Amino acid sequence: MAVGAALLGTGGGGDPYIGKLMAKAAIAKFGPVDLLPLNDVPDTVEIAACGAMGAPTILIEKMPSGEEIGQALRAYEARTDKKIDAIIPFEAGGINSMTPIMLAAEFRLPVIDADGMGRAFPQLEMETFHVYGVPACPVTVADEQGNVVIIETDDAAKAEWLARGVTIRMGGQSYIVNYGMDGQTARRVSVPGTMSLAIGIGRTIRAATESHRDPVADLITFFSGTHYETARILASGKIVDVSRREQNGWSVGVVTIEPFDSTRKPVSIQIQNENLVAEEDGKVLAIVPDLICILEADTAEPITTERLRYGQRVNVLGVKVPPIMRTPEALAVFGPAAFGLAHEYAPLEA
Amino acid sequence: MAVGAALLGTGGGGDPYIGKLMAKAAIAKFGPVDLLPLNDVPDTVEIAACGAMGAPTILIEKMPSGEEIGQALRAYEARTDKKIDAIIPFEAGGINSMTPIMLAAEFRLPVIDADGMGRAFPQLEMETFHVYGVPACPVTVADEQGNVVIIETDDAAKAEWLARGVTIRMGGQSYIVNYGMDGQTARRVSVPGTMSLAIGIGRTIRAATESHRDPVADLITFFSGTHYETARILASGKIVDVSRREQNGWSVGVVTIEPFDSTRKPVSIQIQNENLVAEEDGKVLAIVPDLICILEADTAEPITTERLRYGQRVNVLGVKVPPIMRTPEALAVFGPAAFGLAHEYAPLEA
Repeated sequence: MAVGAALLGTGGGGDPYIGKLMAKAAIAKFGPVDLLPLNDVPDTVEIAACGAMGAPTILIEKMPSGEEIGQALRAYEARTDKKIDAIIPFEAGGINSMTPIMLAAEFRLPVIDADGMGRAFPQLEMETFHVYGVPACPVTVADEQGNVVIIETDDAAKAEWLARGVTIRMGGQSYIVNYGMDGQTARRVSVPGTMSLAIGIGRTIRAATESHRDPVADLITFFSGTHYETARILASGKIVDVSRREQNGWSVGVVTIEPFDSTRKPVSIQIQNENLVAEEDGKVLAIVPDLICILEADTAEPITTERLRYGQRVNVLGVKVPPIMRTPEALAVFGPAAFGLAHEYAPLEA
Repeated sequence: MAVGAALLGTGGGGDPYIGKLMAKAAIAKFGPVDLLPLNDVPDTVEIAACGAMGAPTILIEKMPSGEEIGQALRAYEARTDKKIDAIIPFEAGGINSMTPIMLAAEFRLPVIDADGMGRAFPQLEMETFHVYGVPACPVTVADEQGNVVIIETDDAAKAEWLARGVTIRMGGQSYIVNYGMDGQTARRVSVPGTMSLAIGIGRTIRAATESHRDPVADLITFFSGTHYETARILASGKIVDVSRREQNGWSVGVVTIEPFDSTRKPVSIQIQNENLVAEEDGKVLAIVPDLICILEADTAEPITTERLRYGQRVNVLGVKVPPIMRTPEALAVFGPAAFGLAHEYAPLEA
């Protein structure tokens, strides 16, 4: 699940190895966690979203204590005077599909098989929850020292702005609870099935590796049987440049891949925590919100942004996202223009 | 009162003209406010401190809506589940002795004749409240757009760090409620009488000006009858350089004064919102927490940090602060070392 979620995280959402350790430790301590299908969520249960915020380059050096996300939820419950019944990941990612499991284990709650991005995005307002009308606030932000900040604003982008500022002051990494809603709302505004999708992706990669089949071919077949439908290889080659820095609380930069096929031009991928747009010689191969997944060439393990290195052999997989993420309302919030990209959105399959 | 508090603000704490307008508008709208002597505060009343946070250079361009401080108090009451009975200024200053009046008028509460700094300081932990054991948190931070942030940490310096980060994200200016305590505690941890002291300072300046007497001489006489006891002129001269910038959410810099007495060397004053240390040729004339007040030469009106200009003729007045601000515990929190100054503390009168 951590590996599959890291693939959906398109570079962001955190390192799956650390995520796996965190979730395993929580389950060992508190017991197993139920995954609740989105359609089975009762109308009136109280749900909150959670995840880690910050630059993924920082997360791998600034490890969580394990207490943060629980503190964020306790502050959330105290502020809203509500008992939360179920947890939903605010995004899919190697860490951020695992933090909900940690939290759910500690509080003996189910995790809903869905999320608010259908992938990972770098900003808190880039949520289908926000696109379809759920207020982001209160947002509770906790760090490993026990500091907690509660943010209240009507404007989801302002909540992102303030929470990012707080996260920077917390050392570049924090843990967040936000987007409280009831079950009926969650069914309407969430990207369904992304946690079980992550399990399926991980299983596909593992099975292909164990049986010495081509994992990327198997992934493409696997996706064709899911609501993500279409996946295709955008490039196969070697990373010849990684330009990456921490800026404004994110990891931003450009990675350049030289294709093995010498008739093709270098492929560049712009990054803001996540992979935003893949271009070859000025031509867009794929662009947000469609997924751009950089996979290790032999194993198809997703390479998260902070692990990109010169010389890595990679396949870049493009994956179509479900219709709920491609409406005009959704593209207004997390389409190319929301990232300051000049390109029009062009569906992957077009 | 606004003018007198601006003098106590030693450059910081905000512009007295804007402060006066804010308080007058609130009193016109909501009615007059009682000033409650510190000794008359009942043991069990609930008290909260308030004021504006940010760089004074920004405040004069980013005017408050008038709603901020009330929002901060409503969030504070909601978070603590307490009804606040009285307001205490967290510092003395041209704005920050007035924001408590605005808040008290709106909520029909008394303002306590005392504060937590006995002057103005640039950081939230530099409070006698903190020195003598009152937790800073929760701290509620509000801006003119209705955004509210609540900070919870055991560490007053961390609360400052997080609130400053939030304030920067709010555009460099915010309004704060913090340091909740009961009446018995307030009597123990506050600098007494600073609001009526501000009124006395203002009256002294006005009376001297109206009767064409030397206002600085009258101020020195006035202070000798108060618990601040000693005031003396550190320098008289012309401002020949103002080096000032916004950095990390404060106005920082150095002002240089060329004395009219040509036998004296230039006097430099280091600033972090407030005037921290006055030196002549490397010799300390006065240093925090004692007051260093830059006064317009003819009128003795205090010149706040953001109003300092080349060519102004000024008297620099040093004022001794009361014993509660000079204990080893107090000097550890707001003595020279707390500002990174290499100098030892040297009492003004020594």
